[in-house]
Amino acid sequence: MATGLPADDRGLAYGDGLFETIRVVAGRAPLWTWHMERLEEGCRRLHLPQPAPGMLADEVSAAADGLDDAVVRITWTAGSGPRGYARQAMVPGRMIVVASAVHPADPFMATHGVALFECSTRWSLQPKLAGIKHLNRLEQVLARAEWDDPSFTDGLMLDMDGRVISTTAASIGLVVDGVPMFPALHRCGVAGVGRRLAMASLPGVVETDIDRAMLVSASEVFLASSVRGMLPVRAIGDRHYAAGPVAKALQAAWNAAGMPPLRHPEQP
Amino acid sequence: MATGLPADDRGLAYGDGLFETIRVVAGRAPLWTWHMERLEEGCRRLHLPQPAPGMLADEVSAAADGLDDAVVRITWTAGSGPRGYARQAMVPGRMIVVASAVHPADPFMATHGVALFECSTRWSLQPKLAGIKHLNRLEQVLARAEWDDPSFTDGLMLDMDGRVISTTAASIGLVVDGVPMFPALHRCGVAGVGRRLAMASLPGVVETDIDRAMLVSASEVFLASSVRGMLPVRAIGDRHYAAGPVAKALQAAWNAAGMPPLRHPEQP
Repeated sequence: MATGLPADDRGLAYGDGLFETIRVVAGRAPLWTWHMERLEEGCRRLHLPQPAPGMLADEVSAAADGLDDAVVRITWTAGSGPRGYARQAMVPGRMIVVASAVHPADPFMATHGVALFECSTRWSLQPKLAGIKHLNRLEQVLARAEWDDPSFTDGLMLDMDGRVISTTAASIGLVVDGVPMFPALHRCGVAGVGRRLAMASLPGVVETDIDRAMLVSASEVFLASSVRGMLPVRAIGDRHYAAGPVAKALQAAWNAAGMPPLRHPEQP
Repeated sequence: MATGLPADDRGLAYGDGLFETIRVVAGRAPLWTWHMERLEEGCRRLHLPQPAPGMLADEVSAAADGLDDAVVRITWTAGSGPRGYARQAMVPGRMIVVASAVHPADPFMATHGVALFECSTRWSLQPKLAGIKHLNRLEQVLARAEWDDPSFTDGLMLDMDGRVISTTAASIGLVVDGVPMFPALHRCGVAGVGRRLAMASLPGVVETDIDRAMLVSASEVFLASSVRGMLPVRAIGDRHYAAGPVAKALQAAWNAAGMPPLRHPEQP
């Protein structure tokens, strides 16, 4: 683990930076390209320098070395600077890479689905920060702190206007009238890499504003995460869902991408 | 300066923490109590443990030792934790204290006022984070990055609905029809300690929603900062203001609080 971050790092001071959490399986990161594209887009949006791609790959490989199945977190900050919101010209940026082992997926969850807590903490609307994976994550921290009942795997988060956006740590998708859909993310939210894999593998998928009420009419609800994979949602409040064909197709796409199976092979 | 922050600190990972920047003059922090009250309120709102007050005072004294006039930044984070938004139970918190010397105030600014850039980056609305000085400051960083012309001392920031909230780094106040007023901060913004001093010293001051248009009818506009003091605003865009009696009264209150004078004694 990297240690010894200088106390004047702007990532600590102001959350001035970005991160990626990348699943690395047997030394290979199946969704690497998309993580790098999101990180590059984040640098453009925050006016940060781009990290050198070769250096990043080397650091991630080194961090994951010896782990069969790891999550490697890359944090990319605006580096050290004097007090104040103004960045110095020509900041070099600072990279922090930390790996942790992945616990095997729970096949019950992958087959039968997960229950979501309904968080009262909402996404604020900020188009300048929407979509990118920046370090300002207090809304997710506060939302996650709303429950400690382990029967809830994650928590549903709406935006300030009541639209469905995500869970605290994953992308969410729905099937309404046979059409798979994901929330539009131009006002808030994180453009998940698991979501991107899901959208790439679902013909006819749409991105749209999703009102809270549409969860009631959905035939299927599912989560997409580049770390945890594709999981059906079985309950949100008193609304229950059956694990459906779309979540199953997404799990097949997950496996095809080179990720470890989420379900036991003998499971239906 | 503290060094060697662990890479798994949640302040870095998610901006999970708070900060204060405290002016320390000849070993004494005139606005200490209000800084501590805001920090305590932030801990309550973010469900963080409270730092031990005695320890804080000792650390700040030690950091400012040898500096006649210093700004001491206290950063108080949720401490180290494993990957993920969920905090561990009983986090101890982590304190980082860094001091820097203060440059003497520019007496021209204090007398004749400062010009504000009009930032396009807006405050998003998030009542759960409004008022406290947390570490999620990308909106201020982006707003501050909008100009580099040094003739602008700071930048005006509105909220998503077009209300006047603050500059990037200070509180803002107005005088309209003879009534001094500050923006209400229950949707966004930071409840500045300089603003608190200003409000305590202005009879009849009100806190209210301030529409952008009210800047046109204001007879006086001023900034309040616990670090930089009380400054008249002389221009926002093509609207010009004279330095007025309210800003002058606030500078007297600043001096009376034990802070260094902002103007030359011989200035009118």
